[in-house]
Amino acid sequence: MVQGFAVFEEKGDLKPFSYELGKLLPQEVIVDVLYCGLCHSDLNMIDNDWGISTYPLVPGHEVVGKISQIGSDVTHLSVGQNVGLGWHCGYCNDCEPCGDKEHNLCSQAKGTIIGHHGGFADTVKADANSVVVIPDSIELSTAGPLFCAGVTVFNPLVQYDIKPSSKVAVIGIGGLGHLAVQFLNAWGCEVTAFTSSQSKEKEALELGAKYTLNTNKKDEIKTALNKFDFIISTVDVNLNWNLYLRTLKPKGRLHFVGIPPENLDINLMSLMVGQKSISSSQVGSPQMIAQMLEFASSHNIQAIIEEYPMTEINEAIKRLRSGKTHYRIVLKK
Amino acid sequence: MVQGFAVFEEKGDLKPFSYELGKLLPQEVIVDVLYCGLCHSDLNMIDNDWGISTYPLVPGHEVVGKISQIGSDVTHLSVGQNVGLGWHCGYCNDCEPCGDKEHNLCSQAKGTIIGHHGGFADTVKADANSVVVIPDSIELSTAGPLFCAGVTVFNPLVQYDIKPSSKVAVIGIGGLGHLAVQFLNAWGCEVTAFTSSQSKEKEALELGAKYTLNTNKKDEIKTALNKFDFIISTVDVNLNWNLYLRTLKPKGRLHFVGIPPENLDINLMSLMVGQKSISSSQVGSPQMIAQMLEFASSHNIQAIIEEYPMTEINEAIKRLRSGKTHYRIVLKK
Repeated sequence: MVQGFAVFEEKGDLKPFSYELGKLLPQEVIVDVLYCGLCHSDLNMIDNDWGISTYPLVPGHEVVGKISQIGSDVTHLSVGQNVGLGWHCGYCNDCEPCGDKEHNLCSQAKGTIIGHHGGFADTVKADANSVVVIPDSIELSTAGPLFCAGVTVFNPLVQYDIKPSSKVAVIGIGGLGHLAVQFLNAWGCEVTAFTSSQSKEKEALELGAKYTLNTNKKDEIKTALNKFDFIISTVDVNLNWNLYLRTLKPKGRLHFVGIPPENLDINLMSLMVGQKSISSSQVGSPQMIAQMLEFASSHNIQAIIEEYPMTEINEAIKRLRSGKTHYRIVLKK
Repeated sequence: MVQGFAVFEEKGDLKPFSYELGKLLPQEVIVDVLYCGLCHSDLNMIDNDWGISTYPLVPGHEVVGKISQIGSDVTHLSVGQNVGLGWHCGYCNDCEPCGDKEHNLCSQAKGTIIGHHGGFADTVKADANSVVVIPDSIELSTAGPLFCAGVTVFNPLVQYDIKPSSKVAVIGIGGLGHLAVQFLNAWGCEVTAFTSSQSKEKEALELGAKYTLNTNKKDEIKTALNKFDFIISTVDVNLNWNLYLRTLKPKGRLHFVGIPPENLDINLMSLMVGQKSISSSQVGSPQMIAQMLEFASSHNIQAIIEEYPMTEINEAIKRLRSGKTHYRIVLKK
């Protein structure tokens, strides 16, 4: 029996929950959890914001742990290896995106916490090709957030072929944004951080931003017109996106990894003049996660975390809901 | 003195108008007009829809003619050559886009009919690097529309590296769309045409579409979910763009060259799930026009036009306003 923490109803507290993992299939592995990050998407699932939650629900999709069992067909992993598991715990392995090593775009991808028990538990089960070995040079206690937040902000740099010579901006310096600033700075880009918080302006500079702009001061953004090749928005609030589009150079891209509460209201001329693009993505493939980990290791990129014992999971969730987390929460088993 | 046709007030009729071309600058050429296409943007300028019109205004930015004079610095063109002129008649030649041969993205690009007299006249003046030589194999009487409508739909194929193996869709079979279908078919793509008109469904198939879908039949679009790599929208009406996004495959792009009357209302999840993009562009660089003309010549791509004598310009404008043009109007000098 696995000991985990589950929520039993929409918006409920997490409570201890025992369950069977089920038979280990040939392509699967079992991971003994060491750490698990707490992500805003865990709250969305706890609250059933997307209408896809089933209860009891064991959240946790930024899992770091040690392989304790491997299925009979698994040849590229071995017991005792440190691995991580993110938003997806399996793929169809048969569609065009899977064939292109873009598994995260597989329409049949299995969610780690969607009809499947996640990482707030002793152990978690997953398809072997959804877990990624963690290089020894990566600190395990802060690695969890890289598997969701980290790859989410890293993936677009590869997908859209961002150049080290590019001028880029990060909107929002939080769990995602503080990693985006680090990745983009290490990528060679000149980084501007947009934040509404004065204290975060200072921290963004320490994390690698060259400039900061305060989103609450209306005129500051106008100093950045026609400046950026690429903007990544990590915020979950509505902003004047047409104004941000004006800060892009010709052929620039405004990319969303945060989800604003309202639809985007886009004036087509903001895109047409200067041939600009808007796009969005979520997480990345296991191959992308491996590439991201290697890059993070090379450049000493780490999530800044607050650590809680997993037994204090409800306090941790309360802290995340308060919006005051600095910048990411990790639960220690 | 040049004899042309000008509009003297917002939404006015065109009337004969005589004016001086002014001194020929070293980098300029003068073109004796043979034909000039009539584009919807001419109506927007006549009506001052964009608030940038100055009167008297000589419209016409799909010019086909013969070079009659060249400035002292012009070495790559000669008197007597057949050339075309599109939306832009000059560039700064000094900015990043100009350096990258993306002159149409130059923020200082001069409009052929913005504070400058266009092609509904005996002659027109332009910077030499904004006119493009027309290959002998291109029929002059139908070439005009290629210089605005043609390059507008051709440019995205190059910009976004559309593959011949791609499945693509064209929304709207009109002046732009009937050219887009031809270009995409010749490009090797499997083309689906979205149209609201039954008669155009038949014509779209003749122009090279493999499939058609009627935009007025709500359920037809649902047969195309997850089908297209690329959609180009040429329409000036509002559609349910989130539904069209669902017809894109992962990493697909919805590209706008037509301008809907209202802002785009985009549900972010329509982009995020499948990592999709929205973009827009207008016209293309002179280099792109040259590439487009060569491709059109190789594949016998022609605009389908209705020809009017230039003296009947007001009748032609009335016809264009009626929405019944089939598919593009060209005025013969």
